[in-house]
Amino acid sequence: MKQTITEKIFSAHTGEEVSAGQIVQSPIDMVIGNDITTPISIKQFERSGAQKLANPDGFAIVMDHYIPAKDILSANQAKISRDFAYKHDLKNYFDEKDMGIEHALLPEKGLVIPGDVIIGADSHTCTHGALGAFATGMGSTDLAYAMITGKNWFKVPQTIKVVFNGKFGEHIYGKDLILEVIRRIGVDGALYKALEFTGEAISSLDMDGRFSLCNMAIEAGGKSGIVAYDDITKEFLKGKNLRSKPVIHYSDEGAKYESILEIDVSKLDPVVAYPFLPSNGKSVREAVKDDIAIDQVFIGSCTNGRLSDLRIAAEILKGKRVSKKTRLIITPATQKIAREAEKEGLIEIFIEAGAVVSNPTCGACLGGYMGILGKGERCVSTTNRNFVGRMGDRTSEIYLASSAVAAASAIAGKIADPRDL
Amino acid sequence: MKQTITEKIFSAHTGEEVSAGQIVQSPIDMVIGNDITTPISIKQFERSGAQKLANPDGFAIVMDHYIPAKDILSANQAKISRDFAYKHDLKNYFDEKDMGIEHALLPEKGLVIPGDVIIGADSHTCTHGALGAFATGMGSTDLAYAMITGKNWFKVPQTIKVVFNGKFGEHIYGKDLILEVIRRIGVDGALYKALEFTGEAISSLDMDGRFSLCNMAIEAGGKSGIVAYDDITKEFLKGKNLRSKPVIHYSDEGAKYESILEIDVSKLDPVVAYPFLPSNGKSVREAVKDDIAIDQVFIGSCTNGRLSDLRIAAEILKGKRVSKKTRLIITPATQKIAREAEKEGLIEIFIEAGAVVSNPTCGACLGGYMGILGKGERCVSTTNRNFVGRMGDRTSEIYLASSAVAAASAIAGKIADPRDL
Repeated sequence: MKQTITEKIFSAHTGEEVSAGQIVQSPIDMVIGNDITTPISIKQFERSGAQKLANPDGFAIVMDHYIPAKDILSANQAKISRDFAYKHDLKNYFDEKDMGIEHALLPEKGLVIPGDVIIGADSHTCTHGALGAFATGMGSTDLAYAMITGKNWFKVPQTIKVVFNGKFGEHIYGKDLILEVIRRIGVDGALYKALEFTGEAISSLDMDGRFSLCNMAIEAGGKSGIVAYDDITKEFLKGKNLRSKPVIHYSDEGAKYESILEIDVSKLDPVVAYPFLPSNGKSVREAVKDDIAIDQVFIGSCTNGRLSDLRIAAEILKGKRVSKKTRLIITPATQKIAREAEKEGLIEIFIEAGAVVSNPTCGACLGGYMGILGKGERCVSTTNRNFVGRMGDRTSEIYLASSAVAAASAIAGKIADPRDL
Repeated sequence: MKQTITEKIFSAHTGEEVSAGQIVQSPIDMVIGNDITTPISIKQFERSGAQKLANPDGFAIVMDHYIPAKDILSANQAKISRDFAYKHDLKNYFDEKDMGIEHALLPEKGLVIPGDVIIGADSHTCTHGALGAFATGMGSTDLAYAMITGKNWFKVPQTIKVVFNGKFGEHIYGKDLILEVIRRIGVDGALYKALEFTGEAISSLDMDGRFSLCNMAIEAGGKSGIVAYDDITKEFLKGKNLRSKPVIHYSDEGAKYESILEIDVSKLDPVVAYPFLPSNGKSVREAVKDDIAIDQVFIGSCTNGRLSDLRIAAEILKGKRVSKKTRLIITPATQKIAREAEKEGLIEIFIEAGAVVSNPTCGACLGGYMGILGKGERCVSTTNRNFVGRMGDRTSEIYLASSAVAAASAIAGKIADPRDL
């Protein structure tokens, strides 16, 4: 049988040849919770009477949403995960001591392996598909089930093959690719489907760009996003203390796809997704014409808070100053990224430009803390969602874009095209 | 007439020879508001019909408590100050572009001058007395009055002279001195009085230590704290772009004091103020015996978030690791301090030790954000107040101490004496 990479991953895990649409019980390699979602899982875990985790080293808690605690509620919420982590002596527990956003931190730590089945009680768990794994978000109760049993059930998803042809133009990034996909197929265009990203442009896309791309599969309704293992994946994994050996799968020629979407990357402009849907993508040229004044620019999140995002932003911000009425908040996705950015001189550039650089956190992206929007405020954000009220007041507006567009807009005080600088 | 330094400052400002107890109208050199208190002042300012500030360059807004905004309320609150600052084209408006805690930022910027009369809608405005100025906290409405008229009324305070004799022992800092004063005279021991700090030990105390000392005058109920100008003051001011020329006053021999308190610094142990009052000071030796497990250590605030505090902490933390169940949050008081700490390698030491380093903010100190305490959690904090619920949950506990005690406790996971390391 000709199979997609996703079908192959589930076949390898279940020991039978499975195909899209089939319901399977699959062992899970990595189960991820955060400070918001894990307490609910812990409650279910404890209600079940379970004493031990099925696979302690395949369970990670990453405290990334609300710590250091922003209020009493988040402090008490965090305490539940902390106490559980201490009690079970969890190896993969990350808090103030080694801060990072789960979807940036776990690959960095070698905890995401090609061929894995990964679930996380966070919708952007699909990010990890960038390493050739099947990774998807689930609810906290589903997480508890996996904590107890080491597995869960899945309907093997159909796959939409997205072929990116052509070469990258100036200031076109993984973020632009995924915003273009969502613009074309809509926020429910990939409902319960795997998005398999391939083509010439993907071959030359760096890992950070691939994470960004897979991260927003969920914004098209996707069950997962995936990029097959190649030299770029290999390079990324090199030197990491990997949890296990990579298992490499490729889709067969002739595998069955639900549909195929072809995009010529060379014809893309940087994309800006207007409020209030990630599918409201427009060319940045149009946004420049619309003359949209910006109160806040946010560069960070599991979508675009990685080192290359910071490098892109720094290149644009170097020697410039953030516009008078605009504030720029930069949140490196992990402590390691923050330190590397420091060593490369990027943080100095940001501060000189008038940015504030925070500790790693999901922070502003989800309207958590560290840059919440007030009444009628407009933000250019490198994050993943621009729903009503996502980052603050219901009347605020979010324009999603790459870190290049974000940095250029911070200087201009309005949405700007980095190619015009 | 023999006068105290405080009487002299008011005499110079009013043009008449005044003495303690007298009510005067005095011009004000610097009026300070923050993101919490200024909106109320702005409302009163606008209600008054005033179009312009009496002294625009003598008015500063420092956005330090809740920005980058931690929630919608703080975002909307911040917007009021932002809009006012833009409308009046304020020179001394500081937000995300140049972050810092007001009482650390303004001296750094050369906006606090010896001989000044300074008011701020923040109780720790007394910090600025360390530069030989009269500085006190007032309500937002009083601030509005000064914004409109350039002056305000004061009852010239009586003075308690605090003489610190002897030399500093190992790990004794300004923080220990003020905690000892408050331990002796209580939280209302200096009600509406100026605390004038003098003596051999003060002559050798660096500016950061003096800020820390004056900062907590209010915790003894003091109207102000003050240290007269000397070579250390001169050195601190050197190279700064000062708002105006220093006016130097000294208390006359024979000036009238309400009382005189003498403390032999050489006999002090590091002081730890137990919950729930800053006056509950005990020797750190006693605290070590009490074996008090600590969930969080916080190093920061207008009291002890300065460069020397970070240096002291780094010296202790270097090559060590924060205890497993303890988290360490370090918040440099200003962006400049953060950058200097970075250049000196202190931040690297903190991160290596397992600390999280935040952007400058008042943050955790006031239970704002960036390290709020949960149920029953205990914190060693370099801040100024340990009232019930100050930093979070009503059942949490705060132990006030120097950054040396804080750093040592972070490593030990319980209150520790830095001299034992």
